[in-house]
Amino acid sequence: MMKLAIIGYGYWGPNLTRNFHNTPDCQVKWVLDLSEKQRLRVRSTYPNIHTTDRIEDVIHDHEVDAVVIATPVYTHFDLASRALKAGKHVLLEKPMTSTKDEAVALIELARKHDRVLMVDHTYLYTPAVQRMKQYVDEGLLGHIRYVDSTRINLGLFQTDVNVLWDLAPHDISICRHLLGERPISVQAVGVSHTENNLENIAFLTLFYPENRIAHFNCSWISPVKIRQMLVGGDEKMLVFNDLETTEKLRIYDKGYSVLPESDRDRILVDYRTGDIMIPKIPQFEALAELAKDFRDAVLHGKEPVSDYLSGLEVVEILEAADQSIKQKGREILL
Amino acid sequence: MMKLAIIGYGYWGPNLTRNFHNTPDCQVKWVLDLSEKQRLRVRSTYPNIHTTDRIEDVIHDHEVDAVVIATPVYTHFDLASRALKAGKHVLLEKPMTSTKDEAVALIELARKHDRVLMVDHTYLYTPAVQRMKQYVDEGLLGHIRYVDSTRINLGLFQTDVNVLWDLAPHDISICRHLLGERPISVQAVGVSHTENNLENIAFLTLFYPENRIAHFNCSWISPVKIRQMLVGGDEKMLVFNDLETTEKLRIYDKGYSVLPESDRDRILVDYRTGDIMIPKIPQFEALAELAKDFRDAVLHGKEPVSDYLSGLEVVEILEAADQSIKQKGREILL
Amino acid sequence: MMKLAIIGYGYWGPNLTRNFHNTPDCQVKWVLDLSEKQRLRVRSTYPNIHTTDRIEDVIHDHEVDAVVIATPVYTHFDLASRALKAGKHVLLEKPMTSTKDEAVALIELARKHDRVLMVDHTYLYTPAVQRMKQYVDEGLLGHIRYVDSTRINLGLFQTDVNVLWDLAPHDISICRHLLGERPISVQAVGVSHTENNLENIAFLTLFYPENRIAHFNCSWISPVKIRQMLVGGDEKMLVFNDLETTEKLRIYDKGYSVLPESDRDRILVDYRTGDIMIPKIPQFEALAELAKDFRDAVLHGKEPVSDYLSGLEVVEILEAADQSIKQKGREILL
Amino acid sequence: MMKLAIIGYGYWGPNLTRNFHNTPDCQVKWVLDLSEKQRLRVRSTYPNIHTTDRIEDVIHDHEVDAVVIATPVYTHFDLASRALKAGKHVLLEKPMTSTKDEAVALIELARKHDRVLMVDHTYLYTPAVQRMKQYVDEGLLGHIRYVDSTRINLGLFQTDVNVLWDLAPHDISICRHLLGERPISVQAVGVSHTENNLENIAFLTLFYPENRIAHFNCSWISPVKIRQMLVGGDEKMLVFNDLETTEKLRIYDKGYSVLPESDRDRILVDYRTGDIMIPKIPQFEALAELAKDFRDAVLHGKEPVSDYLSGLEVVEILEAADQSIKQKGREILL
Repeated sequence: MMKLAIIGYGYWGPNLTRNFHNTPDCQVKWVLDLSEKQRLRVRSTYPNIHTTDRIEDVIHDHEVDAVVIATPVYTHFDLASRALKAGKHVLLEKPMTSTKDEAVALIELARKHDRVLMVDHTYLYTPAVQRMKQYVDEGLLGHIRYVDSTRINLGLFQTDVNVLWDLAPHDISICRHLLGERPISVQAVGVSHTENNLENIAFLTLFYPENRIAHFNCSWISPVKIRQMLVGGDEKMLVFNDLETTEKLRIYDKGYSVLPESDRDRILVDYRTGDIMIPKIPQFEALAELAKDFRDAVLHGKEPVSDYLSGLEVVEILEAADQSIKQKGREILL
Repeated sequence: MMKLAIIGYGYWGPNLTRNFHNTPDCQVKWVLDLSEKQRLRVRSTYPNIHTTDRIEDVIHDHEVDAVVIATPVYTHFDLASRALKAGKHVLLEKPMTSTKDEAVALIELARKHDRVLMVDHTYLYTPAVQRMKQYVDEGLLGHIRYVDSTRINLGLFQTDVNVLWDLAPHDISICRHLLGERPISVQAVGVSHTENNLENIAFLTLFYPENRIAHFNCSWISPVKIRQMLVGGDEKMLVFNDLETTEKLRIYDKGYSVLPESDRDRILVDYRTGDIMIPKIPQFEALAELAKDFRDAVLHGKEPVSDYLSGLEVVEILEAADQSIKQKGREILL
Repeated sequence: MMKLAIIGYGYWGPNLTRNFHNTPDCQVKWVLDLSEKQRLRVRSTYPNIHTTDRIEDVIHDHEVDAVVIATPVYTHFDLASRALKAGKHVLLEKPMTSTKDEAVALIELARKHDRVLMVDHTYLYTPAVQRMKQYVDEGLLGHIRYVDSTRINLGLFQTDVNVLWDLAPHDISICRHLLGERPISVQAVGVSHTENNLENIAFLTLFYPENRIAHFNCSWISPVKIRQMLVGGDEKMLVFNDLETTEKLRIYDKGYSVLPESDRDRILVDYRTGDIMIPKIPQFEALAELAKDFRDAVLHGKEPVSDYLSGLEVVEILEAADQSIKQKGREILL
Repeated sequence: MMKLAIIGYGYWGPNLTRNFHNTPDCQVKWVLDLSEKQRLRVRSTYPNIHTTDRIEDVIHDHEVDAVVIATPVYTHFDLASRALKAGKHVLLEKPMTSTKDEAVALIELARKHDRVLMVDHTYLYTPAVQRMKQYVDEGLLGHIRYVDSTRINLGLFQTDVNVLWDLAPHDISICRHLLGERPISVQAVGVSHTENNLENIAFLTLFYPENRIAHFNCSWISPVKIRQMLVGGDEKMLVFNDLETTEKLRIYDKGYSVLPESDRDRILVDYRTGDIMIPKIPQFEALAELAKDFRDAVLHGKEPVSDYLSGLEVVEILEAADQSIKQKGREILL
């Protein structure tokens, strides 16, 4: 049995609480939130969960095995450090921290205290991404040449982070998961239409070895909502449309082969276009899977899917993207 | 009556020939093509049109008022120079030339010989773009904050130009037409998957004054065909989906206002979301409109919509984009 | 304050319970279900609600003002009669009863005991249908000429009623609400692919005065889910697509006028095709509105939207449809 | 070499002329049309084709092997009779004739004179319908339980036939082609909103042995254009959406099995839902295939796909549908 404290009961906290509440061998003992109104909401829904607004209540409770931190990013480092030092396992909301240095410091703390440190990249646990990962691992798509993702809508302007820190962690963590490779460099541009100069439209590019490329289009001011990722392999190509309810993935038997020099007259490549397959994918809640993964990491030492290296890479890339945006798109080596 | 010669009867030449053939006060006298097979095709469709494979036949024919050049880009400068020097008006296929210097030289020639020099940016004559232009001019969208275009599909790999030179002229010329403003700088990234190192995926960003931005996603290796342009104004936003047959434009009464400092507690902006309007748009062939525009420029001195400055700007931006791609996304000032 | 008992906690009962639980001035005192498992579910979610499997507990409880009956259709008459005779107000799940005679008998009982008798045609309370009703009442569509609804998917085969009794009540009640008129006659065909001879595909037609027609296509064995209703007026036409999340209604400025005899040469009608408007519609839960409507009927004597005459008409039409199906489509006068 | 005369150069005649003109071993010698304007159009497009407004010119020309009749339905019988009696092979536009008796009489004439008599059900030659036929013949769909087609839009009101005679021949001929079986009876309803009492909305049902059913929804006054046919088999189900350009067919691995009596508790059927497959289908013009089929029937005695029995069945069913509509949906045995 793992006893947990959830820190932060704002937008995502209720989902975390509900899922850990329903996970076997897990007990949510505490929910911490600074707002009395939110604490009241917790108690009326879960009469057995304790609430508090003091981090000490959680840190000093020896029964608490693990804390789940779903507060604004700039608070992550302080809260997670204190928890790790107190011997608690930690699950951090994405993005992991505000800077790469903070992420590295947390990782060192976790290693030193031999605690689990995990980051909530929920998307990695969705049925669609799991199926994509399976296709990639089986070689169905062949060698992946590019990823092109569009994640735009009329979204809430954040006041502490720009649109990339808000939306791109999903795409970056999925790319890492699928490609199993670290980008060489990062490049980004964006604009802000508010006085705080936080970008509300931004375009991020990751360069990989062998001319692989990933490009993410993120916006809070699009009239239409789009959640679409193209994954282009040299065998097949895949489209992941997360707004579809039952047809999230489409596999296209479509592609081209570069012709050998001798065969070329005026055409360079040979095209192939065939059937499209829309696989039936099971439906389950990704966050429930993540909760189980964290539990198994804590109780049984299992290696989690959404590990701290994934969290670190996301922060590294976002930090580099900020630098690149300031320099109007200059490439930043990782 | 304007007498024309069409040079090049490959992919686009037949469309140009058919449209000028059907335009009142126009007579296609010559079609020039190096392939006997293509010349035969011309004669069987249009028994009254002369065919040749020699540029001299066209240039030295004093009856010919104007030439229309639809050959590969690298031949544009030479053919257009000779035509202008021979006193012919010239309509050039897009992109206008291979370099900015060539474009400037042609413009000077046209001015010196007082001839019309026009570039075929057909999109500017489409019913949808004309309607968009009308909306922008009437102020329906308010101040335009961004343009975001996706123009991707499994397309023919060109052997002489990269994907931006192939596809982006459409987006660049539409942007110039709608915004009526010149970008300050250009930034682009891309990758090639062929030995000739011509990019088959590329992302181009234009920076304008006052944090306006335009971004174009161009690809020849997408499994899905997308032709979508978002135009975000501070009053309304518009989506142009060119693959729709009868619903190409959607006007969204959607947007946000930045709140004055005093009103802000934790939210920065105020959101608005209302009805969507899909206007009925007339259906006509854009190329027929362009043919009439060229004719009126030649015969009546009318200022054409798709003028040489538009052609020049496209080439300047593409040249800068090539430089930027080589430097992995560095900003190039125009 | 109105105290209620919910009878039946199967598919729809939990939704009724939750909504009445959340409605001001309403208190769900009892939930009755024959299954101990379901009663347990009730008590764990709502510790303050009493549960029972005996109708007498509810009927004889003098505190209970109203009962909500969400059991299989064939039990409606008996349960509702007993409740009305005991002086309870009654809300019945749709369809109201198994036969027209039962419906008439219940209405007489309700009148005699001066109790509210209402039927749960939830669709009438949805934002989309309310907006459609408003458009019709304002005359936006002009005179309605036809309604054409498709309500098909791979659905659960019922074991006691055919597909029309399952799905058509929605369409019939919406039609009555919009047209404000009673059909003259009914015609239906259908087939069964199971041994119980209950139709799993059926097509129902209602004939109205002045050549108005309504047609409903209902199926449990369609590979695709469709929930689409066309409403054709002589001014404008409307499409209601209930599977859309934010674009449920589309108003088409499309139609035709019959030309006067003198103007006709070979064409009979004059066509009109214009803009399409997609209105922004508020989002709320229809069942919460229905709960308030029932409460206001009980506590304040308000005339409910989904009244017993609507319930009666649905049953009359379904009964006639069954007769017509048996006679392979013969018209049945109402 | 087969020499033809095309009779009628209105809506469909130009397509027939162009396709037969391009078919090897075919020569269009005559086009007959009553309008001088249309005859002029023919001569300017095809300088070698003779034109006339007199049927005698065609009938008495001994070089003419076959006539193609694309005139209004009520003229079919007279024109085809004269052509057959003069020893010409005949291809008739759909529907074949105005009545079943006329169709039977033409068939007898064709047999007596040993001439080919074929009906232009173009849809049978489309790539999508050919593929559907192949799937059915291979047993991919299993036993077909139902066909459900919607063929609606804001269409031209015909002045001589109702909407079923205009649109349903497509569906009826496809059904016959796929099911290979004759319906037992026919049932239809419809309404007219014009003074000539020709229905502009109509619903047609065909009853087949073993509870197979086909239902066609035809309308000239729908705001949206829909061309969708569902084919439900007990192995798989298929959707044919003719408005899609590259994804016309979808095969759903979806269905249900009726459970044996012993397995039933409360559920009657067992559901199955799996992948969806969108086959790549070749693109070609159906009318070109039909022209070749007619040529091969005339020159080589090949049995044509769209034979006179298909034409006869369509007319029989439409005649029965008219009777049924007059009797408000009564079943008419064939």
